[in-house]
Amino acid sequence: MYDFVFHNPTKIIFGPGAEAQIGAELKAAGIGNVLLLYGRESARKSGLLDRVIASLNESGIGFVEFGGVVSNPVLSHTREGISLARGSGVEAVLAVGGGSVLDEGKAIAVGAVAEEDVWEFFLGREVTRALPVFTILTLAATGSEMNGNAVITNEETRQKYNIGSIHTHPRVSILNPELTHSVSPAYSAYGAVDAIAHLIEAYFTKEAKGDATRLQDRLVEGLIKTIMEDAETIKSNPADPEARASLMWAATLALNGLTPAGVGPYTFPNHMIEHSLSALYNIAHGAGLSIVIPAWMEWYRPRNPDQFKRFAREIFNLDDGQAGIVALKKWFADLGSPVSLREMKIAADDIEMIAANAHGLARRWEIGEIYPQETIAEILRLGAA
Amino acid sequence: MYDFVFHNPTKIIFGPGAEAQIGAELKAAGIGNVLLLYGRESARKSGLLDRVIASLNESGIGFVEFGGVVSNPVLSHTREGISLARGSGVEAVLAVGGGSVLDEGKAIAVGAVAEEDVWEFFLGREVTRALPVFTILTLAATGSEMNGNAVITNEETRQKYNIGSIHTHPRVSILNPELTHSVSPAYSAYGAVDAIAHLIEAYFTKEAKGDATRLQDRLVEGLIKTIMEDAETIKSNPADPEARASLMWAATLALNGLTPAGVGPYTFPNHMIEHSLSALYNIAHGAGLSIVIPAWMEWYRPRNPDQFKRFAREIFNLDDGQAGIVALKKWFADLGSPVSLREMKIAADDIEMIAANAHGLARRWEIGEIYPQETIAEILRLGAA
Repeated sequence: MYDFVFHNPTKIIFGPGAEAQIGAELKAAGIGNVLLLYGRESARKSGLLDRVIASLNESGIGFVEFGGVVSNPVLSHTREGISLARGSGVEAVLAVGGGSVLDEGKAIAVGAVAEEDVWEFFLGREVTRALPVFTILTLAATGSEMNGNAVITNEETRQKYNIGSIHTHPRVSILNPELTHSVSPAYSAYGAVDAIAHLIEAYFTKEAKGDATRLQDRLVEGLIKTIMEDAETIKSNPADPEARASLMWAATLALNGLTPAGVGPYTFPNHMIEHSLSALYNIAHGAGLSIVIPAWMEWYRPRNPDQFKRFAREIFNLDDGQAGIVALKKWFADLGSPVSLREMKIAADDIEMIAANAHGLARRWEIGEIYPQETIAEILRLGAA
Repeated sequence: MYDFVFHNPTKIIFGPGAEAQIGAELKAAGIGNVLLLYGRESARKSGLLDRVIASLNESGIGFVEFGGVVSNPVLSHTREGISLARGSGVEAVLAVGGGSVLDEGKAIAVGAVAEEDVWEFFLGREVTRALPVFTILTLAATGSEMNGNAVITNEETRQKYNIGSIHTHPRVSILNPELTHSVSPAYSAYGAVDAIAHLIEAYFTKEAKGDATRLQDRLVEGLIKTIMEDAETIKSNPADPEARASLMWAATLALNGLTPAGVGPYTFPNHMIEHSLSALYNIAHGAGLSIVIPAWMEWYRPRNPDQFKRFAREIFNLDDGQAGIVALKKWFADLGSPVSLREMKIAADDIEMIAANAHGLARRWEIGEIYPQETIAEILRLGAA
């Protein structure tokens, strides 16, 4: 094992109806008023927003509403939220929605108390403070509910970049799995793909090899197997309460810092390449990942063949590393998530341009030497058709 | 899954030499002086205490030393520590040692700011505040480094009782696996037994059954398998750095609230009975557990046969629940941990007296109806010879 620091102070309140507790949690934290952030009007139509507002009213918490967060949340809307937060003097951000709303909520929380423009932090400036963030989650996918990460797209520069800080860890995240019962089959699949993607990045690229990280490997494999079973159940029965609950908690644990603790340095190559796909084509993050992952695995496998053998054996009961990649690709496809650029109508001619964009993120993440533009293009070509 | 709250704000700093960071961590938390709590003089002789004091000095943290914590820490010494903490006006407790030192540190932290005598809290009064607790761990076993629990023995009444609170969660726990390299074979084995015991209590007794908690079952099984491999490696090579590191982190995760989150109500019957053994005979907690667990399993198996089948299959690759119990008992024995009262020279004639003591704890934990005195005696008789 490698040295590590694990610090995840987020309080998770899990269960049907748990959103009714948000007012009391804010009050207990000494918060008097919040920016109430959400995405589409579905949060209002479903009645969720009304229930949240009722809970705020009951505890005497004031709020300023700010809707309209989009998937792959954008910098311009984030800046609007920052202006509103500053102007109204809110003491915290309450984000109600999926990972996009949570991520934008964190970015607003940083920008609202910063002297600099918020994009400076996405370009590398250290986050040293933020308004407290509280969340009510409506989608099992990104893990944003229990980590300090936020990803925002700068529409002008076409950069989909991230920040990560202990200051942007949600204080409290409310996970009511019933809120996810109505998520569409496509987005349910993308969520499962995203959670699996979070688990495999460190699993394959970690510096510690062999027996030293048996524990972490087992945690990852247990989570992946559970997520796969849950996703299959949800595909045939979208409102299965046990599968929805299990997927929600598994997706949270997939990116809360637990599984990579102790595995040494690792990289996020699949996210790096996918962020360019969704920045350039505005496709769903999970849809982009199911295209990138099998292609990247094929390219990466010779660099860590033993771990790919282990993956094939533990996840698919197969004894060949390449067969495990084929099986995962087929599983993505069967679930209804795309596995080629062609399916998303992204032309092979665009590959150099995508690779150039992704290489910008590779430099930002200091893995530009492992992933020069030509290597990224090579990986993308493996996922073209 | 059942509703749950998961909230574990402890910051873990893991790695060789990490104790050098304690001064800076205290300073960053605004602490000016601490009660420096430790156990036997081995902490001084090994040089650990000197290194800790050097770190405190470097950050300008004042301290008052208080040594002499014993295994199965006792109320009288805890009360002495509380007097010292009050009299010296320390702002935090820094516990350096194994689970006993950490537990007494938490109890002192509660008592130092309470108007009541500290034992009131062990008898059921709610803990509402405590001095901040910081820890430097020297033994992989109890998980106290990442939870709010503390167990103290009242020598007068022969009660080994516990408290649990968010206020006694360590703020920072430093885990340097090298500090455990010199732990004796016997105590290394007891530590592994204790960690396994923490995992199986909820695994077998949880209210949620079947597929609803596949995720939690897999996390438990992954941890148990890892702990067993680590313990076997340590038995033949006590200073194996990877096994010591892996065991230390696995033992922490075994009782940090992760694995039972979502499994519904569960009980701690093995700990209930063992606490009486160590309260009455002052035997090591792990030694008592390896006696109680196989006996309890034999008694409990008909009440949850499917989970015992699962345990046998996943842990020992056996297809019969009873065979899994036999295999675990043999594994405890092979590791050098006792599996009968006779081995610890506890007479069968004492069983009624032990059962009466344990039933006191059963009432305290509100499981007295499941475990009347006669049932506890029946379980103990299964572990007599």
